[in-house]
Amino acid sequence: MEALEVIFKHRSIRKYKKNSIPDDILLNILKAATRAATNGNMQLYSIIITTDEQDKKELFPLHLNQEMVLEAPVLLTFCADLNRFTKWCLYRNANPGYDNLLSLMSAIADTILAAQNAIIAAESYGLGTCILGTTLYTAKEHIKFFNLPKLVLPFISITIGYPDEDPPLTDRLPLEAVIHPGKYQDYDEKTIDIYYQEKENLDIYKDIVKENGLENLAQVFTEKRYTKKDNEEISIKLWEIIKEQGFFQYNE
Amino acid sequence: MEALEVIFKHRSIRKYKKNSIPDDILLNILKAATRAATNGNMQLYSIIITTDEQDKKELFPLHLNQEMVLEAPVLLTFCADLNRFTKWCLYRNANPGYDNLLSLMSAIADTILAAQNAIIAAESYGLGTCILGTTLYTAKEHIKFFNLPKLVLPFISITIGYPDEDPPLTDRLPLEAVIHPGKYQDYDEKTIDIYYQEKENLDIYKDIVKENGLENLAQVFTEKRYTKKDNEEISIKLWEIIKEQGFFQYNE
Repeated sequence: MEALEVIFKHRSIRKYKKNSIPDDILLNILKAATRAATNGNMQLYSIIITTDEQDKKELFPLHLNQEMVLEAPVLLTFCADLNRFTKWCLYRNANPGYDNLLSLMSAIADTILAAQNAIIAAESYGLGTCILGTTLYTAKEHIKFFNLPKLVLPFISITIGYPDEDPPLTDRLPLEAVIHPGKYQDYDEKTIDIYYQEKENLDIYKDIVKENGLENLAQVFTEKRYTKKDNEEISIKLWEIIKEQGFFQYNE
Repeated sequence: MEALEVIFKHRSIRKYKKNSIPDDILLNILKAATRAATNGNMQLYSIIITTDEQDKKELFPLHLNQEMVLEAPVLLTFCADLNRFTKWCLYRNANPGYDNLLSLMSAIADTILAAQNAIIAAESYGLGTCILGTTLYTAKEHIKFFNLPKLVLPFISITIGYPDEDPPLTDRLPLEAVIHPGKYQDYDEKTIDIYYQEKENLDIYKDIVKENGLENLAQVFTEKRYTKKDNEEISIKLWEIIKEQGFFQYNE
């Protein structure tokens, strides 16, 4: 399929058929992931492949019981990985300095670039995908389950399988809302109104606002989906885990 | 071009022809970026478009004088952006809680997913791209130059233009080195030897080792390219900037 067609047809798939993914296709999806650009060609990521039913059952609660973890034939967990590169240096009498914030950020970039290539490759084969942000929410449990050593952080997981649903494209803000020619143009009440108007007027969102007995769509996010309380609780845990995994050795 | 062909042909392009990119193509590249998956459809990124020659001259030193910043007709700077979403909440009587580590990580994921879509879209038009990691190195200067408000972090920049070079594909580790079926299999001296052997034996790297008067390729990374000293100095600055930009309000 044409690259632009794949990109412009993308929507998350949350229901999958039982068919497994042929080995050669899965292999090519993984190879596609490794062709993405990577900082200094260091490939600062690892990809954990889950196909075993028992493993999926154990990962299911870690992803807050999202059914697609059980349904999808393949779950890929993309980890920022500075362990392999550091070990290489250590075995070569070289002094590695990759237990720090910049290296973690570089590894996260490598990881997500590879993940998006995997998504596009999968979709070009007619497969559906969904990114699970829950990997970070339960990073500690993921680390334990996958036996992740220091300098490895599980970042996002992706379910892959043959779609058993055909949802419409998801809405997006008008392009003008997210691009800035030359300099960043900050948002004021007037531009926020203009950019969010179309979204706020969609029936699907109006229904959600009503069902939840709230005033508007923004409150659905702040009161229900991504609350300050949840975000802060998870952030505190995540910060501890990032330190435990050894990414802030230099200023301790 | 077929999606897989684009992915498997990717290599960074650092020399560009003078031709500018037609507006409709640039627009479609930007639209492609916005079709990537995004956490809760929040679109936690902004894309700054630099085409002005004077702007490029000012950004040139911020990217450590990499010539492609001046040569490429377009430079896109992808920023993790929790400002727009937060402002939307504030103007809607909703209580935002996005000034924290988890939200920053979610925004970074959104940002890189969008960036990789832009890269693939650009390459499907026969354009070449190169990711500049230097954006994070000089995040403070980028913030000042682009007038970035709090809750916006410049993350990566991408040069885009018609290629004026045709470099070969870059080597990658064998796929087995980066994938882990089921659980993470940690690396020991033996597996590191196996996985890095092919890379270490490439003539291009042997020459670089020799030119630098070092023992091996790992030392080229630790002594020349990504040194502990540089990484730590940049990490300390970056950490300050992340706090200054308001991403750690909750535990201060």
